[in-house]
Amino acid sequence: MSRIAFIGLGNMGGPMAANLVKAGHAVRVFDLVPAAVDAAVAAGAHAAANAADAATGAEVVISMLPASRHVERLYLGDDGLLATLSPDALVIDSSTIAPASAKKVAESAAARGVAMIDAPVSGGTAGAAAGTLTFIVGGEAQALERALPVLQAMGKNIFHVGASGAGQVAKLCNNMALGAIMAVTGEAIALGVAHGLDPNVLSQMMAVSTSRSWATEVCNPWPGVHANAPASRGYTGGFGNDLMLKDLGLAAEAAMGVGASIPLGELARNLYAMNSRAGNGGLDFSSVVKLVAKDV
Amino acid sequence: MSRIAFIGLGNMGGPMAANLVKAGHAVRVFDLVPAAVDAAVAAGAHAAANAADAATGAEVVISMLPASRHVERLYLGDDGLLATLSPDALVIDSSTIAPASAKKVAESAAARGVAMIDAPVSGGTAGAAAGTLTFIVGGEAQALERALPVLQAMGKNIFHVGASGAGQVAKLCNNMALGAIMAVTGEAIALGVAHGLDPNVLSQMMAVSTSRSWATEVCNPWPGVHANAPASRGYTGGFGNDLMLKDLGLAAEAAMGVGASIPLGELARNLYAMNSRAGNGGLDFSSVVKLVAKDV
Amino acid sequence: MSRIAFIGLGNMGGPMAANLVKAGHAVRVFDLVPAAVDAAVAAGAHAAANAADAATGAEVVISMLPASRHVERLYLGDDGLLATLSPDALVIDSSTIAPASAKKVAESAAARGVAMIDAPVSGGTAGAAAGTLTFIVGGEAQALERALPVLQAMGKNIFHVGASGAGQVAKLCNNMALGAIMAVTGEAIALGVAHGLDPNVLSQMMAVSTSRSWATEVCNPWPGVHANAPASRGYTGGFGNDLMLKDLGLAAEAAMGVGASIPLGELARNLYAMNSRAGNGGLDFSSVVKLVAKDV
Amino acid sequence: MSRIAFIGLGNMGGPMAANLVKAGHAVRVFDLVPAAVDAAVAAGAHAAANAADAATGAEVVISMLPASRHVERLYLGDDGLLATLSPDALVIDSSTIAPASAKKVAESAAARGVAMIDAPVSGGTAGAAAGTLTFIVGGEAQALERALPVLQAMGKNIFHVGASGAGQVAKLCNNMALGAIMAVTGEAIALGVAHGLDPNVLSQMMAVSTSRSWATEVCNPWPGVHANAPASRGYTGGFGNDLMLKDLGLAAEAAMGVGASIPLGELARNLYAMNSRAGNGGLDFSSVVKLVAKDV
Repeated sequence: MSRIAFIGLGNMGGPMAANLVKAGHAVRVFDLVPAAVDAAVAAGAHAAANAADAATGAEVVISMLPASRHVERLYLGDDGLLATLSPDALVIDSSTIAPASAKKVAESAAARGVAMIDAPVSGGTAGAAAGTLTFIVGGEAQALERALPVLQAMGKNIFHVGASGAGQVAKLCNNMALGAIMAVTGEAIALGVAHGLDPNVLSQMMAVSTSRSWATEVCNPWPGVHANAPASRGYTGGFGNDLMLKDLGLAAEAAMGVGASIPLGELARNLYAMNSRAGNGGLDFSSVVKLVAKDV
Repeated sequence: MSRIAFIGLGNMGGPMAANLVKAGHAVRVFDLVPAAVDAAVAAGAHAAANAADAATGAEVVISMLPASRHVERLYLGDDGLLATLSPDALVIDSSTIAPASAKKVAESAAARGVAMIDAPVSGGTAGAAAGTLTFIVGGEAQALERALPVLQAMGKNIFHVGASGAGQVAKLCNNMALGAIMAVTGEAIALGVAHGLDPNVLSQMMAVSTSRSWATEVCNPWPGVHANAPASRGYTGGFGNDLMLKDLGLAAEAAMGVGASIPLGELARNLYAMNSRAGNGGLDFSSVVKLVAKDV
Repeated sequence: MSRIAFIGLGNMGGPMAANLVKAGHAVRVFDLVPAAVDAAVAAGAHAAANAADAATGAEVVISMLPASRHVERLYLGDDGLLATLSPDALVIDSSTIAPASAKKVAESAAARGVAMIDAPVSGGTAGAAAGTLTFIVGGEAQALERALPVLQAMGKNIFHVGASGAGQVAKLCNNMALGAIMAVTGEAIALGVAHGLDPNVLSQMMAVSTSRSWATEVCNPWPGVHANAPASRGYTGGFGNDLMLKDLGLAAEAAMGVGASIPLGELARNLYAMNSRAGNGGLDFSSVVKLVAKDV
Repeated sequence: MSRIAFIGLGNMGGPMAANLVKAGHAVRVFDLVPAAVDAAVAAGAHAAANAADAATGAEVVISMLPASRHVERLYLGDDGLLATLSPDALVIDSSTIAPASAKKVAESAAARGVAMIDAPVSGGTAGAAAGTLTFIVGGEAQALERALPVLQAMGKNIFHVGASGAGQVAKLCNNMALGAIMAVTGEAIALGVAHGLDPNVLSQMMAVSTSRSWATEVCNPWPGVHANAPASRGYTGGFGNDLMLKDLGLAAEAAMGVGASIPLGELARNLYAMNSRAGNGGLDFSSVVKLVAKDV
């Protein structure tokens, strides 16, 4: 069992830390929100006064933060964790951030002899609670091997997709495609409904045909098709429109950084931005169908 | 067993007619291309002098034609088949055409007391040859019931999605979503590759994640990922770029007809049009990735 | 002075007919809406019982109708005007319709020896009232020459852009570009405003720089920049969002008919469709900026 | 007359520095490319060993560099110019860079009591040579007043659009709209030509109608319409596709930074990226029409 520091106890980080406790690890936690720390303590973690305190003596440091700037601030600079961590420590950043940022932190870690992987997740809050997340990992195979026992306490599938930053790139590739697939699936169903088709029948056909996807199989954007999908409960819960918007923005930045063109990806980004502008930023991202459909 | 007239013996119609013969039906065929008729005769069909000749005395008329105008010309007008068909006959149009056109012909058939369904297919030439096509059917349940023994000789899955024209609408919804999914999947993989990721590893991850689709599971647009996909043989075979372009055009028309907006669907249409303009119209539609990727 | 039949007395047709009367022509009018006929009569025109009655003995027939189907119904078929018009008559269709439809009617006219031009207009209701419309003409030079005295009573600029149908094509090219220019100008100003810029100052700079256009010079989409623009009076008046949507739909059809790609044109189409879906279909088309801007 | 340091002597900076010399200023120059320095010296400037050397004793420092990172490197950090400049000095950055970057440098200058404006230009290499550039200025009015005599030696129009960074924002708004306007104008003309219209006639009509723009008035993307436009000499010269691509990327970043949506702007970005991918990155940006037109 390991001594683990866990920084960032939001909707994802909280249950992830709890699963580490459940697996028998000694977990010291920190978050700027006291209530989040309290909840983790109630689940068996130990409260730290700040991130540096949490990391003192830790064998593994895990971070789950909102954006690139938070991750850079946590690790870099004179008062960043990398300045004080033991070279024996292993760093796992599970935040979804810019690949360039992930590489920058990883290089800084490597310069200090600290092993680090980027390990963004897929699976949402439900997966975080159930311990069934998918980890998409960038970094050295050796570092991943050391991380395995810890990752397996929080997730089910672990993909090693390349060197440092590759985990972030792959996560963005997945989410960019997902964002466009969800939106065009909404367009297709709205088109069918406008022609008088039953959204259930149309969706069932699509779910077993060449346009099948997670959107038609699991999380249909049309109300009533999947009883447990956000669309069937007013688009509440799920993966927020503005989180998808953030990931599509990171994908666009990643594309611009290498001169890539992602016409559908960027149009999807703008659709989620317009949906946010229409007041739906806090709803599940499948609410993007509202832009093109009446009465949903 | 039925007396069947089969009009249109192209890459799809030819093997479909052959499967009907194999199932024991008496099939009279016509096509403007003599070689296509010869091939059908070699498979056991009987040659007719023209469409009207093929339809004389037929219990079932099946058409598999390139576009709306061919279907309207075949059935409508003073010399169209509907003017001479017996009211007992059943008409099955398996062409992919405009929903408005399908409805127009079906209404004309209904006015003459002739039962008609639109039954466009999915599954490609391989599915046509193997008799494993999917039929997406619009029309009355009673007419579909009569058609079942005939359809089952050519396909495996049969979806009844609504009234006349609904089969065409649903087919277009599927193909529109497919066209956008294929293109954005290509964008995502190209983005990953530009960042140094291995297209195989990235695709495997996507195939079991939330961006999974037929494109990542079966027909990856990146060369070498799926050994049997068109991308791995120079984008030859498969479903042609210009056929996808045609279907996306029909989807756009269907959207305009009801005031629907399909921003990703129409952008996808334009990507396939630009790919055609770049000289790739005859390649598989997954070649659309060439617009955004180097060296594929 | 000529004996003129004028069919279609809407917001555009009404004042156009009045200007013909003012110029001394004998104008017989018809419209399905009695009040529209009454207004024309009050302006000095003569009421006809129907279109055929209006056209009896006319030297020039002018039509100003909403869509292709109305124009085809007016002129074609056994009871269409072309069946009874004298070969000496000249037909001027000023409706904005599909180029294919314009060509079809012109060919039918030619087959009967009747000269016809398509002459869609630009300039809006203000231009129609002031007699300062721009006519964009397709057809033979000889026919245009005969039409000149009549067109000059209603407009100021007359462009001869090609053979039959070319007037419609050119009109659509103009309106497609206009639709995209207005929308992207709105995006640019909204982007500047979101960064704290003054929309007036930004617009003034753009109006004399390389992004200048009718949108920044005359009809700014941001409220308050141009006092007389629809944006400064709640987007009322002007050229309706749904009329622009109609023209962009015709442009898309024209593109599909020749295998052209118009990625920005079709995305613009979808933006206007989404703006219509948001309830702004009856507002001026510059209200499309609402999709991307807060508080306008 | 002032003592001026000029850093960055590329296609734009070179002639700008020469105009300052011509106006009687004492200009000390630096560029990493020796030949560029030699040319400036030949025009009457004095060579400096490096940027710091050029800036020693300067009353005004002007920079004209390729990208944000070059500007930040020049001014910021322990060895940046701001560390050594006299508080009496005035800094003018005419590079086109990210607004966030411009603000960062301006804040750093302000912290040291150094006045600074961002003053990106429009007008191209021809305007730089002729001294007719347009300056789009962000910063305090007082600083701009001090800069006027210097700016007027290089340009003709000067717009003050707001506080620090506003010059960059406004430049990006202009260029984003320009990029989309050029591309959709190309789509419109290609659509007309595909329907048999004469590109000259169509362009002349558009140039005086509601779709008029710099593209139809001055720099038509279709070969042969404007004899002096890049399109009429194989798309050489002019404003490079990849420079437009860079500006559209900056606009996209600026949009993402404030949660704005710019659907047409980002689609335009992707069109220029695809044109670059097709091998046309070095051509004038009007070559984007090649994506949608045959034989240009």
